[in-house]
Amino acid sequence: MASNLLHVLPPQGLLRPLAMPERLLLGPGPSNVHPRILAAGGRQLLGHMHPEVLQVSCPGPQVTAQLKAHQNLTLPLPKCLPGASVHELLKPPGEYFTPWDIEEVSAGHGAGWWVQAGPGGSHLLLCFTQGLVRHKPLVLFITHGESSTGVLQPLEGLGELCHRSVHGCLLLVDAVASLGGAPIFMDQQEIDILYSGSQKVLNAPPGTAPISFSERAREKILGRKTKPPSFYLDMHWLANYWGCDGELRRYHHTPPINSFFSLREGLAMLAELGLEKSWEHHQLNCAQLCQGLRDLGLELFVKEEKARLPTVTTVRVPEGYDWKEIVAFLMDNHAIEISGGLGPSVGEVLRIGLMGCNSTSSNVDRVLHALRDALRCCHRSRL
Amino acid sequence: MASNLLHVLPPQGLLRPLAMPERLLLGPGPSNVHPRILAAGGRQLLGHMHPEVLQVSCPGPQVTAQLKAHQNLTLPLPKCLPGASVHELLKPPGEYFTPWDIEEVSAGHGAGWWVQAGPGGSHLLLCFTQGLVRHKPLVLFITHGESSTGVLQPLEGLGELCHRSVHGCLLLVDAVASLGGAPIFMDQQEIDILYSGSQKVLNAPPGTAPISFSERAREKILGRKTKPPSFYLDMHWLANYWGCDGELRRYHHTPPINSFFSLREGLAMLAELGLEKSWEHHQLNCAQLCQGLRDLGLELFVKEEKARLPTVTTVRVPEGYDWKEIVAFLMDNHAIEISGGLGPSVGEVLRIGLMGCNSTSSNVDRVLHALRDALRCCHRSRL
Repeated sequence: MASNLLHVLPPQGLLRPLAMPERLLLGPGPSNVHPRILAAGGRQLLGHMHPEVLQVSCPGPQVTAQLKAHQNLTLPLPKCLPGASVHELLKPPGEYFTPWDIEEVSAGHGAGWWVQAGPGGSHLLLCFTQGLVRHKPLVLFITHGESSTGVLQPLEGLGELCHRSVHGCLLLVDAVASLGGAPIFMDQQEIDILYSGSQKVLNAPPGTAPISFSERAREKILGRKTKPPSFYLDMHWLANYWGCDGELRRYHHTPPINSFFSLREGLAMLAELGLEKSWEHHQLNCAQLCQGLRDLGLELFVKEEKARLPTVTTVRVPEGYDWKEIVAFLMDNHAIEISGGLGPSVGEVLRIGLMGCNSTSSNVDRVLHALRDALRCCHRSRL
Repeated sequence: MASNLLHVLPPQGLLRPLAMPERLLLGPGPSNVHPRILAAGGRQLLGHMHPEVLQVSCPGPQVTAQLKAHQNLTLPLPKCLPGASVHELLKPPGEYFTPWDIEEVSAGHGAGWWVQAGPGGSHLLLCFTQGLVRHKPLVLFITHGESSTGVLQPLEGLGELCHRSVHGCLLLVDAVASLGGAPIFMDQQEIDILYSGSQKVLNAPPGTAPISFSERAREKILGRKTKPPSFYLDMHWLANYWGCDGELRRYHHTPPINSFFSLREGLAMLAELGLEKSWEHHQLNCAQLCQGLRDLGLELFVKEEKARLPTVTTVRVPEGYDWKEIVAFLMDNHAIEISGGLGPSVGEVLRIGLMGCNSTSSNVDRVLHALRDALRCCHRSRL
């Protein structure tokens, strides 16, 4: 057997112990993982078809979104829209949409919308049409916690608009940066699909995303006539695999089991603290941070106080500074991660995240102290 | 704020401590996670754009596949083929394909093939054509370690067949169940794309998949004229995000950072042991298991010794027994997971996995002892 070998040596880095620095992660996420959650993720593995794993992967979102929806599922969530026609509507970065904004545009275009989350887009309102019935909206997608601009998008009235005033489309809400840190009410607000991420307020490592469907969304999915282009997100199959239909479970994929343990522990800690308390903590620490930033002479990016996302605060890059210098200074000299902007806010803002166990008064003091230091050392005239 | 609340109580299970039983996972995977790897995954998080994380996520497959390919990347791997026309060719479960099998069929059909991995398919040879140029093969997909039947597919000559004798298609190899447990030579065997999973021989939790591309595959990907239907697997963007093109990294997704730590530690342990030693361990322990199964009067499913996958052994369900009873008996009375068949082998076989740190002589003794017990207690005449 050995005679076949090329005798390529393994990379030397693999033969050294894994060494990682400790950092305070105050960017827009991932945030630091609480030791109790790390311990949960460090438990010995079980098989993905074992009943104990199923118990862990199902009860999540009820506690974080005050919902009583019919499907509570956990999955790694890709972002793909094959076959969909997507149109977008813009608001200036730092502002939010009102139901009126959406209704007016609707009257003009006769179409539905997406507010895009993720790379390149912040606070974009996208119009979504598909297939034979042109200009019939299927889904309104809106981001509750717009982490690229630091905006908390009000959800009041949007569900009603989707279901009655316009076209009966589904309301899909991205609560990745907000779930657990700001109030959201899946049933009261008539949200049809709500998802989040493990790595923000829930303080677990990245890799899982809790998702929940309303009865309306469930019917639409189950009534689908065509096969999805990829079996990866075949919700019929996934619902069976997750044990939601009471049928014998059919293997679909091997899920990240230890990540479920971590996510479960993050949810458990939130359940023990209580949602109201968690919202209150995030609100108070965000207010302390905003006041401290103003005291440093900095300008908050989101003008209206109630429109500020309590988990991610955006502040304008001050005159005479390069945002990259400030970010690097905090990392190198204070082992603190904060971040620059994303999409439309690139170069405009610094972003400071205070999520879950990272949202504490002492972390606010720490990042303000580091920023004061950076403002002293990073001015262009000094570099 | 509190007045808005529905006061839905959190699920009671979340308010109890997370309790998970310890089990020996001797199914076809996931296998148990080594304590050192659990500790690596339990490290505090870093940000996904931090250079330390990039160092961890890149050097993997070189050590496990004796390759010197140009791209070594780690990603969670979905299974989707939108827009592709896929044809299949079958071999009886338990047998493998020879280059001659493939060439003969080629002459008849003038097309290329896939051997499907995953749910429902075991050892299927699939013919893959696409777009305008009908019957021109783009990819031959073959599974090296066929875990549903326990077959080790020989790879000799297949790369040459793809690149010279037939149509110059790419050779794509699924080494999920074999990488680290059986010899594979990416360069010598002219493999173009090789991937595996973290949760088998590498003994890390499920959630990541090392993947590697040959220069030939890289050119094909970079020369692609159309945009991929989903940005999820846009390899151009991913290659940039992974730091492979030397350009400024552009955010694509938040990866499972702790899972990278675990995968890295699994690879490090393999590098320390040495590949030849690892292959030898798997071979020896598999041989001990096979002998023990025969001593129990059981019949091995794969007749030819050299065609047996050293990581997953299949044995026929003996007359007078229900495979489900045996599997449940081992779980309930010995805390050992073994599994039944999958796809064409359902109801036909029991599958016993010995992967990475689970591949030991004492585990062989343990599972043989448990099986002896099951054969005594689970005969239909006794139930």
